[in-house]
Amino acid sequence: MYHSDDKLKEECGVVGIYDPQKNDKISTLTYFGLIALQHRGQESAGIAVYDEGNVKYYKEMGLVQEIFNAKNLELLKGNISIGHVRYSTTGESYVTNAQPLVVRYRGGSIALAHNGNLINAGKIRNELEDNGSIFQTSIDSEVIANLIARNYKRGFEESIINAVTEIEGAFALTIICEDKLVGVRDPYGLRPLSLAKLGDGYVLASETSAFDVMGAKYIRDIRAGEMVIIDEDGVKSYMYSSEKKQALCCFEYVYFARPDSVMDGKNVYSTRQNAGKILAKEHPVEADMVIAVPDSGIAAAIGYAEESGIPYGVGLIKNKYLGRSFIQPDQKSRELAVKLKLNVLSDSIKGKRLVLIDDSIVRGTTSGRIVSMLKEAGAKEVHVRVSSPPVKFSCYFGIDTPSRKQLVGAIKTIDEIRDMIGADSLGYISIDGLVESIGKNADSLCTACFKGNYPMEVPKLGNKYVFEKI
Amino acid sequence: MYHSDDKLKEECGVVGIYDPQKNDKISTLTYFGLIALQHRGQESAGIAVYDEGNVKYYKEMGLVQEIFNAKNLELLKGNISIGHVRYSTTGESYVTNAQPLVVRYRGGSIALAHNGNLINAGKIRNELEDNGSIFQTSIDSEVIANLIARNYKRGFEESIINAVTEIEGAFALTIICEDKLVGVRDPYGLRPLSLAKLGDGYVLASETSAFDVMGAKYIRDIRAGEMVIIDEDGVKSYMYSSEKKQALCCFEYVYFARPDSVMDGKNVYSTRQNAGKILAKEHPVEADMVIAVPDSGIAAAIGYAEESGIPYGVGLIKNKYLGRSFIQPDQKSRELAVKLKLNVLSDSIKGKRLVLIDDSIVRGTTSGRIVSMLKEAGAKEVHVRVSSPPVKFSCYFGIDTPSRKQLVGAIKTIDEIRDMIGADSLGYISIDGLVESIGKNADSLCTACFKGNYPMEVPKLGNKYVFEKI
Amino acid sequence: MYHSDDKLKEECGVVGIYDPQKNDKISTLTYFGLIALQHRGQESAGIAVYDEGNVKYYKEMGLVQEIFNAKNLELLKGNISIGHVRYSTTGESYVTNAQPLVVRYRGGSIALAHNGNLINAGKIRNELEDNGSIFQTSIDSEVIANLIARNYKRGFEESIINAVTEIEGAFALTIICEDKLVGVRDPYGLRPLSLAKLGDGYVLASETSAFDVMGAKYIRDIRAGEMVIIDEDGVKSYMYSSEKKQALCCFEYVYFARPDSVMDGKNVYSTRQNAGKILAKEHPVEADMVIAVPDSGIAAAIGYAEESGIPYGVGLIKNKYLGRSFIQPDQKSRELAVKLKLNVLSDSIKGKRLVLIDDSIVRGTTSGRIVSMLKEAGAKEVHVRVSSPPVKFSCYFGIDTPSRKQLVGAIKTIDEIRDMIGADSLGYISIDGLVESIGKNADSLCTACFKGNYPMEVPKLGNKYVFEKI
Amino acid sequence: MYHSDDKLKEECGVVGIYDPQKNDKISTLTYFGLIALQHRGQESAGIAVYDEGNVKYYKEMGLVQEIFNAKNLELLKGNISIGHVRYSTTGESYVTNAQPLVVRYRGGSIALAHNGNLINAGKIRNELEDNGSIFQTSIDSEVIANLIARNYKRGFEESIINAVTEIEGAFALTIICEDKLVGVRDPYGLRPLSLAKLGDGYVLASETSAFDVMGAKYIRDIRAGEMVIIDEDGVKSYMYSSEKKQALCCFEYVYFARPDSVMDGKNVYSTRQNAGKILAKEHPVEADMVIAVPDSGIAAAIGYAEESGIPYGVGLIKNKYLGRSFIQPDQKSRELAVKLKLNVLSDSIKGKRLVLIDDSIVRGTTSGRIVSMLKEAGAKEVHVRVSSPPVKFSCYFGIDTPSRKQLVGAIKTIDEIRDMIGADSLGYISIDGLVESIGKNADSLCTACFKGNYPMEVPKLGNKYVFEKI
Repeated sequence: MYHSDDKLKEECGVVGIYDPQKNDKISTLTYFGLIALQHRGQESAGIAVYDEGNVKYYKEMGLVQEIFNAKNLELLKGNISIGHVRYSTTGESYVTNAQPLVVRYRGGSIALAHNGNLINAGKIRNELEDNGSIFQTSIDSEVIANLIARNYKRGFEESIINAVTEIEGAFALTIICEDKLVGVRDPYGLRPLSLAKLGDGYVLASETSAFDVMGAKYIRDIRAGEMVIIDEDGVKSYMYSSEKKQALCCFEYVYFARPDSVMDGKNVYSTRQNAGKILAKEHPVEADMVIAVPDSGIAAAIGYAEESGIPYGVGLIKNKYLGRSFIQPDQKSRELAVKLKLNVLSDSIKGKRLVLIDDSIVRGTTSGRIVSMLKEAGAKEVHVRVSSPPVKFSCYFGIDTPSRKQLVGAIKTIDEIRDMIGADSLGYISIDGLVESIGKNADSLCTACFKGNYPMEVPKLGNKYVFEKI
Repeated sequence: MYHSDDKLKEECGVVGIYDPQKNDKISTLTYFGLIALQHRGQESAGIAVYDEGNVKYYKEMGLVQEIFNAKNLELLKGNISIGHVRYSTTGESYVTNAQPLVVRYRGGSIALAHNGNLINAGKIRNELEDNGSIFQTSIDSEVIANLIARNYKRGFEESIINAVTEIEGAFALTIICEDKLVGVRDPYGLRPLSLAKLGDGYVLASETSAFDVMGAKYIRDIRAGEMVIIDEDGVKSYMYSSEKKQALCCFEYVYFARPDSVMDGKNVYSTRQNAGKILAKEHPVEADMVIAVPDSGIAAAIGYAEESGIPYGVGLIKNKYLGRSFIQPDQKSRELAVKLKLNVLSDSIKGKRLVLIDDSIVRGTTSGRIVSMLKEAGAKEVHVRVSSPPVKFSCYFGIDTPSRKQLVGAIKTIDEIRDMIGADSLGYISIDGLVESIGKNADSLCTACFKGNYPMEVPKLGNKYVFEKI
Repeated sequence: MYHSDDKLKEECGVVGIYDPQKNDKISTLTYFGLIALQHRGQESAGIAVYDEGNVKYYKEMGLVQEIFNAKNLELLKGNISIGHVRYSTTGESYVTNAQPLVVRYRGGSIALAHNGNLINAGKIRNELEDNGSIFQTSIDSEVIANLIARNYKRGFEESIINAVTEIEGAFALTIICEDKLVGVRDPYGLRPLSLAKLGDGYVLASETSAFDVMGAKYIRDIRAGEMVIIDEDGVKSYMYSSEKKQALCCFEYVYFARPDSVMDGKNVYSTRQNAGKILAKEHPVEADMVIAVPDSGIAAAIGYAEESGIPYGVGLIKNKYLGRSFIQPDQKSRELAVKLKLNVLSDSIKGKRLVLIDDSIVRGTTSGRIVSMLKEAGAKEVHVRVSSPPVKFSCYFGIDTPSRKQLVGAIKTIDEIRDMIGADSLGYISIDGLVESIGKNADSLCTACFKGNYPMEVPKLGNKYVFEKI
Repeated sequence: MYHSDDKLKEECGVVGIYDPQKNDKISTLTYFGLIALQHRGQESAGIAVYDEGNVKYYKEMGLVQEIFNAKNLELLKGNISIGHVRYSTTGESYVTNAQPLVVRYRGGSIALAHNGNLINAGKIRNELEDNGSIFQTSIDSEVIANLIARNYKRGFEESIINAVTEIEGAFALTIICEDKLVGVRDPYGLRPLSLAKLGDGYVLASETSAFDVMGAKYIRDIRAGEMVIIDEDGVKSYMYSSEKKQALCCFEYVYFARPDSVMDGKNVYSTRQNAGKILAKEHPVEADMVIAVPDSGIAAAIGYAEESGIPYGVGLIKNKYLGRSFIQPDQKSRELAVKLKLNVLSDSIKGKRLVLIDDSIVRGTTSGRIVSMLKEAGAKEVHVRVSSPPVKFSCYFGIDTPSRKQLVGAIKTIDEIRDMIGADSLGYISIDGLVESIGKNADSLCTACFKGNYPMEVPKLGNKYVFEKI
């Protein structure tokens, strides 16, 4: 049981810093910001810095701390910086696809970092190729860079606006162009992007937790359909798209974002705790202890305990040293390996009726294993409560979801899932309950993975390019 | 603030497996066991396997998962195995000092893994050197191996007994000698060692959490002053020392051991939760929320909350990706770096009176930083409660403690410490309270770091050898 | 003295293999070919393989043997393959610039490997950028790929011809396009490219020594201005340029090529030996022994000895283990380090009058050091003879030459050079002598570095793009 | 054909430096010396430095240049230094066996570097183990260190003398003990060791070529049975063994030593050239060209050419980039791989009657392949001449020889060997001829591998310890 196999995956995190003065701290600050966003992507990371007309960069496969060191950070001096962390999707994990993407075009150097997924990237690639363009990567950033380059004659502001108007899907971008830092959020605001003040300069980041480690003061979130250009004159804002119904991804609150981030005005931890409380009202149960699937279920479990009056306790212990380099054991040993990741605190749960809080169930494989581990260790009853509604539809906006056939919420009824995972009872928070927990209008959140109500038309087929770098 | 700078450090963990049949799973099981014990030492790790008369081994600097892979585990086939994880003490971190130590002596090959610290190692080295011995490492295992070799004529059982009778201090040993697995615990039982059944064979480990990941069934703890020899005839026990007053290290319960381990009959998590409850009785306070210094304060915080009726909550978020490879930032950036490791959940704690539970305060530096972070983020009051008594004396039995001058508990009064860390109030659990929380007789625990009542005479001066491998 | 600092540098070597059947040996054969061409570039290497519509590739910084192993070669199965080795030019040494370049365009995937240098790359880049192209590398191959892509509508043959008609300068290309292997040589044939038969397939390579290690049979050299397309129908030839006066680079014979290669019909070793004989006639001297600057002067030294009747001997010993990883010693130790690379065989040369044969003198720094080493070791006289004429002009066709100010042949008279290097006499082969030694018509060789008679107009200024990947 | 498979292997090289003043150049000088001795061992290397009472060291698997860098050399400051390069023997290649060996004994720290092989190491190990010693490596140095430690009471000079009196076999040692540098050569002088002056200090090295790169001035060779102790009072000499008949290994001259070294007064290159001349007299033949198997046959080939009047030429080209990391090709490709290492210069040898000079034939496999390559490339006749007599007996003194069954000289007649390798004629230099070429008395050279006349009794069976570090 690799616990995380049963979770959705975020695809990326971005950072951008503008400082009026060239300084040698900018890369270290960007590095700090990327460490704070490491949970959004562990495959590769990179930093690009603008220094008096030139863009220098360094990117590599691995964790932020493995890639950067005093020596390469020292070389990345300048006054504008962007950074990126990337999540690994199968088969495309190599450094050519790492970001930021740095290219030369008629207007000079441009660096781009992208969080999200374009749904018309394939179509635009085709058009660009019809006009003779070549592509060297399979990332959407290369499409965006080409679009910007095609329109360079109109000046960089207009060419960027033109580019973001052509692309469809989810995107939060930080861009270095000329001597400016640009931040863009898609017309639905599907992916988050926030702005902060740092000394005389500014910072952009996917999450506010990145601001905390830089000592930056949160100003506001970039709006859906907004582009900001930051330079020595400060922050200029452009609403390049008539503000559509905003649709920030619900799962940012449910699972992706760090609990200490504040997203579009809502503290993530609080929304999770709220969800636990609402869950306790929607699916009450008599029990002796509320426990969480660590770490993502903890906030909701505390909320559930508070609301229900059932004591909160610890029932499962995670091995915090188990990293990505863990070797896949042979079949015989695999069952044992389950307990390497997550062990039951037998003494705490023996003979007890448990409420087990999980933030989400995607395939359902892990949940079943945890329930049976708890029962084997002596739990009398295990009542599973899930702080997000059943995931029934794939995401096309930057989240790695299995195909619908593998989404247990799409193919089984609640009762069937309960039986499958061996729980004594199973309750999911309602969609309304989740929306309430976040405290925003239902219209301003994307709930497509629960309801299929995609904010825009989604493609029937994938349109990914594949480069077979071995 | 590197949080762990302000904690005591465990020095090692050991594992041993005996299987009647040679098999290719033994190294993988040992590897699993070492991963479960990784918290006891992250500097180096090693595995030695006995295979038809030969001892093969592999050891390296780094985490268990970094060192071992399918390829080298495959080469370590056999039917007896021992493993070791080591904590890094300054200046001695190189592979020569990694364990197990494997040597040839007149009786064949012998492999040793040692958790603890000998207080007469220097004296014995001197005697051995007087007789012409040479030393190639600075680890105590080499002393023990020499003692065994000196007496080889008496047969290995007697020569091991002879050796462990000569050494003084703390030791839990797993040894491969001839075709047997040997486990030894010092006469005071200062360091833990447990026995379990696995199929037709047996397992020894510093903590029972290692048994869980192997699927082994816990039998009992090795007794203070006991040596067990495991071979095809099963487990033979020798009480090589008239059982002295047992004195298991208190800090195993307070901080070192995994919460899911059961040590000398007591579940570690429960003892910590108990400590929280007792702390609530000893040092009650009016407050709005109990929070923990993650992760080590969580169990006591839950106990404190339960006993006091004040709700438990999350106030601090740890970055789980911040590994050992994190670069030391320059002075300017260091203050920021604090928040990389631990960030405040401002929304949760704003305007609240907090009880902050920490498991221990050693130097006091981290505690002060956390209190000020909480206050800056809006906490109205911060009442610090510590689930262990003030640490006033250095340990000589395998725990890395700073000199007394750096132990804040030794040089300041409680009030001075409270002022130093900026808390609104400060309360430590009493020694009696801690003993009660563990549920054992005060006489059977070592409380020397609180009281100075060392179970044996301790040396005035260090006696470490230094090899300057650069 | 880093001996090679005083030599011209070749920039690249290319290989291509076409096999009618997919097989798992093609990458190993390409790997062998690249090892045979390793002397043409030691910075980076790469292999791209066509496999049923897809192009897979692997490229990395380092030597061929360091980059490839059984595992990655195994993954590169297919029936068409190209390979590339690259020489390191300052400031541009990173993997993005490694070749082959693999891109997607409207027609599918295309892979290119380029030996040479385009003199109008900057101009074409400008034009392409004017039309909205972006560039991600600073290598000419990206320009060529864009040109091909622009014209994809005409079909790949015509689009390649169109591309190679637009570019100016030196180029020997191997290209995978659709299911074909393409080889192109520039209209002057400045860079070499040969064709061989291997089983049912064909091989292209910069030098015939690559054929020997593959067991391929040399057929002929690709002609200046010729493009060959190799597919299941065999080899088709296109003369895309009216054959201009051919101008194969003289230095291929003098220094770059392996002595066991046959280039445009002439065995390289023999031409060097001939040069030594002619040198003996042009600059005779009374002496006791002829010695060579190893290894490049050996063939000419043997020729000089034969012609002059003065015995050939060994006077200088090269340390064959001194690799690229040798650390730069501090200033104090640098003088000593000279002898790490090249030591004098004092016994052999003591009291003797020496003829010292070098293949070329570029800056003159090394020559001076060698002469003084020989004299210190007891040589009575040192008569330097150089088997190429004085290098007076920079190369624009793929050879890394210092600026004219650093070319000792451009700024000093022969007498001045003789004094500078401390030789008793100094003689260079004449340009006519060199041409005679090669055995080709003077008109069919490029002698621009000696005479400045560039075969085409060369740019006044460099036009290199710089990407600052740190 | 891995050419070197068919050669004998040297086992080690040693260096030692004494400087009256602590300085930061001593490790760099040692590093230079080891690079100059790299041909004597490419498996591992190490440097130990004495610095005010402490011995610091660093050793690792790999080439000298791969192991050391500015950073670790910087840490090795001091005033006495020893270094070691080691050749890889099967199954024992791991860092524990790397040298120098650094141990602590009653007298302090001691560091040893050993070139050679003890024939009574097993016996002494047994005795030491009988007295309770343990062993952690399989190298002879550990035996020597134990012997020194056993006798520490007599003071270090006497304890070292005592140790070297007990050991039998071949040894050239450099030792740091207290604040002195010690050099020892075995009673037969089987392995070389020379002394030089460097500034106010002294240098010891296996070969004088190490002196050249340090700028040290050769003084003399250490005598057979001599120990020198170097300290602030200069060099003291002890003849610890009544000088036996010296027996320096012939193969040092034939193959092992660098041609630019002077060994026991004889320049290595000159002895090889002499051997070629004598070979020409002993085995004349009518031919058109004399060629060498590169690089080791070159000196003798030049001598043969000079004596016979047949012109010297180049017929075989070695790929100088083919390093240790070259992957073993699959069976199908192996034949091709032969030419990766060594290619024929077809143009030079076509139609010619060749004399092919090799320095030695051990198994005969390579010689056969070279002869057939030459014939395939058009050689009319190939007359093989070998500048050492047939190798018929295994070496026990530090040279890695195959078992006698694999020594072609032991199991076949000259005519059989000639037929086996496909040569038109075959001639070996006579033993007398070889001795004459070296210019020393036959009595002062070890010719046991040719005649079986071992200078001391050799063991019937191997006595190697095996530690199975995987």
